[in-house]
Amino acid sequence: MSDELPSLLTTWRGTVLSEWVDYNGHLRDAFYMLLFSYATDGFMDQIGLDVAGRAASGHSLFTMEAHINYVKEVKEGVAVEVRTQVLAHDAKRLQIYHALYRSEGLSVLAANEQMLINVDVTGSDTGAFSTAFAPRVMEEIQRYMMLHGTLPCPKYAGRRIALPNSLSGWAQL
Amino acid sequence: MSDELPSLLTTWRGTVLSEWVDYNGHLRDAFYMLLFSYATDGFMDQIGLDVAGRAASGHSLFTMEAHINYVKEVKEGVAVEVRTQVLAHDAKRLQIYHALYRSEGLSVLAANEQMLINVDVTGSDTGAFSTAFAPRVMEEIQRYMMLHGTLPCPKYAGRRIALPNSLSGWAQL
Repeated sequence: MSDELPSLLTTWRGTVLSEWVDYNGHLRDAFYMLLFSYATDGFMDQIGLDVAGRAASGHSLFTMEAHINYVKEVKEGVAVEVRTQVLAHDAKRLQIYHALYRSEGLSVLAANEQMLINVDVTGSDTGAFSTAFAPRVMEEIQRYMMLHGTLPCPKYAGRRIALPNSLSGWAQL
Repeated sequence: MSDELPSLLTTWRGTVLSEWVDYNGHLRDAFYMLLFSYATDGFMDQIGLDVAGRAASGHSLFTMEAHINYVKEVKEGVAVEVRTQVLAHDAKRLQIYHALYRSEGLSVLAANEQMLINVDVTGSDTGAFSTAFAPRVMEEIQRYMMLHGTLPCPKYAGRRIALPNSLSGWAQL
């Protein structure tokens, strides 16, 4: 595969469906987020939090925060894929970066940074509460952290939203 | 309506549908973004960029960037609404802040900051290009800016994603 960064994990592949396209004729902003949400599911499958892993541990990941950059329009029927890089983690949080490409393409169509938290969902009456990753899951996260920690910081990570000339924004930092 | 900030505009109202709910039994992260995307459509209706206004001007708004904070879980069937505040604008960009509430509720379920850009979509073969807001649209934006500019900066605006103890993150800034 023609991937500049072969250690990145491809976490979702698919085609842009007609129901995801808006009145401008391209992928609606919210459905980029859906592809990235599926990509997080794909990443969870890789670290032992697939359906069986969630059932066995009682753990799942919740999204706390997400940041999306829309770089290029994507039209219906286009084959795309999401590649994922682990940016950071602590005992119960995981910061990941997804980028959307055309299949086997090199140019970023959109990027999405997510902060996820590990939760115990078994206390369904009292609600979920955050808890440390299971040891087996932590091992997998650390394996990806080792692999991805030497890659350059991705272009759209760590951003805050502001007008280009705003004094309060990212442009001055 | 029991709204602390009555000058905010309610831009979307609806009920959480079964197809938006994930395996954890609550609104999937991407579908919060769909509600916020609908809210942007609702806001466009207010500033002269509804279907007729888009057709007449050849202009539309594209989302350049978005940041979401997930504060509380939302379950299927819950009646919710999005309230919207204009944060800033320039000649062709608009920065808005959406917050999701239970209908007539006071507690934020999720927040979404967006940077939008005005585009001329009439050159459909050559692709859309950014351009200044039409004067009539600019007047409406300025009217909301006057109304909203005196409100406090919303809690989840201007954030960047980082682990709580990260040296590179928002926590130290």
